[in-house]
Amino acid sequence: MPRGYKAAAALAGIKPTSSKKDCALVVSEVPAVTAGVFTTNLVQAAPVRWCREVCRSGKARAVFINSGNANACTGDQGYADTAATAGYVAEQLGMTAREVLVCSTGVIGVPLPMDKIRRGVELCAAGLSPDAGHDAALAIMTTDTVPKEVAVELQLDGGVVRLGGMAKGAGMISPHMATMIAVITTDAAVSPDALSAALKRAVDRSFNRICVDNDMSTNDTVLVLANGAAGIKELLPDTKHFQRFEEALCEVCINLAQAIVRDGEGATKFVEIAVLGARDNEDAMRVARAVAQSQLCKTAFFGQDPNWGRIACAAGYSGATFDGNHLSVFLDNVCVMKNGMRADYQESDAAAVMKKPSFRIEIRLGNGTGEAVFWTSDLSAEYVRINADYRS
Amino acid sequence: MPRGYKAAAALAGIKPTSSKKDCALVVSEVPAVTAGVFTTNLVQAAPVRWCREVCRSGKARAVFINSGNANACTGDQGYADTAATAGYVAEQLGMTAREVLVCSTGVIGVPLPMDKIRRGVELCAAGLSPDAGHDAALAIMTTDTVPKEVAVELQLDGGVVRLGGMAKGAGMISPHMATMIAVITTDAAVSPDALSAALKRAVDRSFNRICVDNDMSTNDTVLVLANGAAGIKELLPDTKHFQRFEEALCEVCINLAQAIVRDGEGATKFVEIAVLGARDNEDAMRVARAVAQSQLCKTAFFGQDPNWGRIACAAGYSGATFDGNHLSVFLDNVCVMKNGMRADYQESDAAAVMKKPSFRIEIRLGNGTGEAVFWTSDLSAEYVRINADYRS
Repeated sequence: MPRGYKAAAALAGIKPTSSKKDCALVVSEVPAVTAGVFTTNLVQAAPVRWCREVCRSGKARAVFINSGNANACTGDQGYADTAATAGYVAEQLGMTAREVLVCSTGVIGVPLPMDKIRRGVELCAAGLSPDAGHDAALAIMTTDTVPKEVAVELQLDGGVVRLGGMAKGAGMISPHMATMIAVITTDAAVSPDALSAALKRAVDRSFNRICVDNDMSTNDTVLVLANGAAGIKELLPDTKHFQRFEEALCEVCINLAQAIVRDGEGATKFVEIAVLGARDNEDAMRVARAVAQSQLCKTAFFGQDPNWGRIACAAGYSGATFDGNHLSVFLDNVCVMKNGMRADYQESDAAAVMKKPSFRIEIRLGNGTGEAVFWTSDLSAEYVRINADYRS
Repeated sequence: MPRGYKAAAALAGIKPTSSKKDCALVVSEVPAVTAGVFTTNLVQAAPVRWCREVCRSGKARAVFINSGNANACTGDQGYADTAATAGYVAEQLGMTAREVLVCSTGVIGVPLPMDKIRRGVELCAAGLSPDAGHDAALAIMTTDTVPKEVAVELQLDGGVVRLGGMAKGAGMISPHMATMIAVITTDAAVSPDALSAALKRAVDRSFNRICVDNDMSTNDTVLVLANGAAGIKELLPDTKHFQRFEEALCEVCINLAQAIVRDGEGATKFVEIAVLGARDNEDAMRVARAVAQSQLCKTAFFGQDPNWGRIACAAGYSGATFDGNHLSVFLDNVCVMKNGMRADYQESDAAAVMKKPSFRIEIRLGNGTGEAVFWTSDLSAEYVRINADYRS
């Protein structure tokens, strides 16, 4: 974990039938510059609204996260509960409520069990340690099958800067709502505006380029805290150092985003969709997203079927502009469609690619220099089972 | 079938492993006014491009349809094959190729087997009968489990006008492409412009309001032929008679569209999504479509789970403008969400609605008078099996 942070995890009993830890706390020893990117869903959970306000101030000292309850669609009481959670964390740690970020993930439409939350806050506050990052990553899991963590060190002229990140997300949460939450800490010194801008760009290259199912949650939240504890002077925008910091931040985000896809509910495949030769990057993104989200493409991935017709079809309705007669598709290095028609390939070569747990689809539009990349999983019968049978 | 039409179906052997009829022909005794609505996919099959051109002339005498091969992504040869098909039909029936509409549905990227197509044309031309409408509806099926047909009679002052329709579509076609095709015939007399305008409005209220999966095909086609054989004088736009004709046309389209959803691949539920109180009809449509397409909502329908949180979530990311605190959701007559929060309802009442094979979800946005309706199926493990395992 980067310098100057502690973490903790605790079992507060928010998930009635689970004996796994369900609360996590990350604390910076000093006030940290903070920035966040949030769901654009019109229906936003109370903690999302709270975090937006804290991030507007540009400073925070702690992040408290509970799993098992999303505190979404809970009205005014939900917001009051989030504020009370922040207040209780602040009281325990000797800071103000407005310095405490709060994230919730889990069931929607159920009031937050405040007695349990208070217990979780107390246990976490008492258990803070520089070595509990992994425990925290475990505690924020819901339908995740593995914790998602990453650490990056960056050697700069004045010394070393560290970044650490954890995330949760696999598609859906028992039993109601898809959510992804990521918390990134760094001991770099950065201004609020520069951090916010860098995070937005990093999220655009990572969390905005993945899908498991296509439902955007009410709780999606990516937070970054930068506390300057590395002791290196502030990284100023438009410098080489800042550029390297932003690349590292982006690496952390891409790593966590890909980990979410790899752990996608029921997923058996990790597929990179690369689009080249688009009119512009936006058009490339349209095609990549359409293929990545297509239910028919995703079932074909699950079926290990080199079904390039479905890929061409999704490209065609993506809204991008191109000439279908110039469309080519590669599965890894096997060209299956060339200039709008079936290419000359061996079915066994294409099938061999599809059998791999991870492969790349390259789509060439022949209409310019725009490009984009997107990561997706397959759609399996197990996904349907997970999301349909939860209550039965 | 309306007056002045004959139909036929034949087995040409286009589907290698099937012994079911795979060619259909519908012929009007006299040149009929014709109109069509087609897929907006950029990648369009050759027969779609051909039909667009025929419809531009406003007149046609025959529709030839083959299943088992979509003639999509087949380049210039594909278009030449469609033209040759039309030419062969014309030769057999004594008309011009430009009076023959051609539809294809089935596998993509494989050249049309022209020897078999020619055989199919010959057999159909030799077997034309006023009573073969049902045979034709059977011959255009692919993964459909039931034929889709509808007949409507309209009593007007001068006599009776008849409309008949058949459609195919269930989601996907072995092994490559989702397609829906509908052919509607009537013995009414209508001008090309009036027919085209009426068809567009009818399609907007029917085929544009359904989804099984969310993939728009390369071959989607809705055709209507009006041959005037009822002997009633031309129905002029903006008259009461025309309005009743258009309503009947709309009824035919809605009936066929709903039949496609009911026969959706793997579907166990038919769900009507109604949105009320939107800022305008477009916003209502955004919400209805988002819920109808949501993978999470559709798996919840399959799981018979009254999961209103997923419905609220999809409404929230639909792009429509509303206040989440005014959002209410009904499952049939059970209010499960009221003013942005869980309503006071019995879980058993909500669960009982979800157990029905067909139910209605009403979403009230409290933001105006806009409204929309959409029909969708559930997403089952069987859907995944159908679309993933076809080649295995």
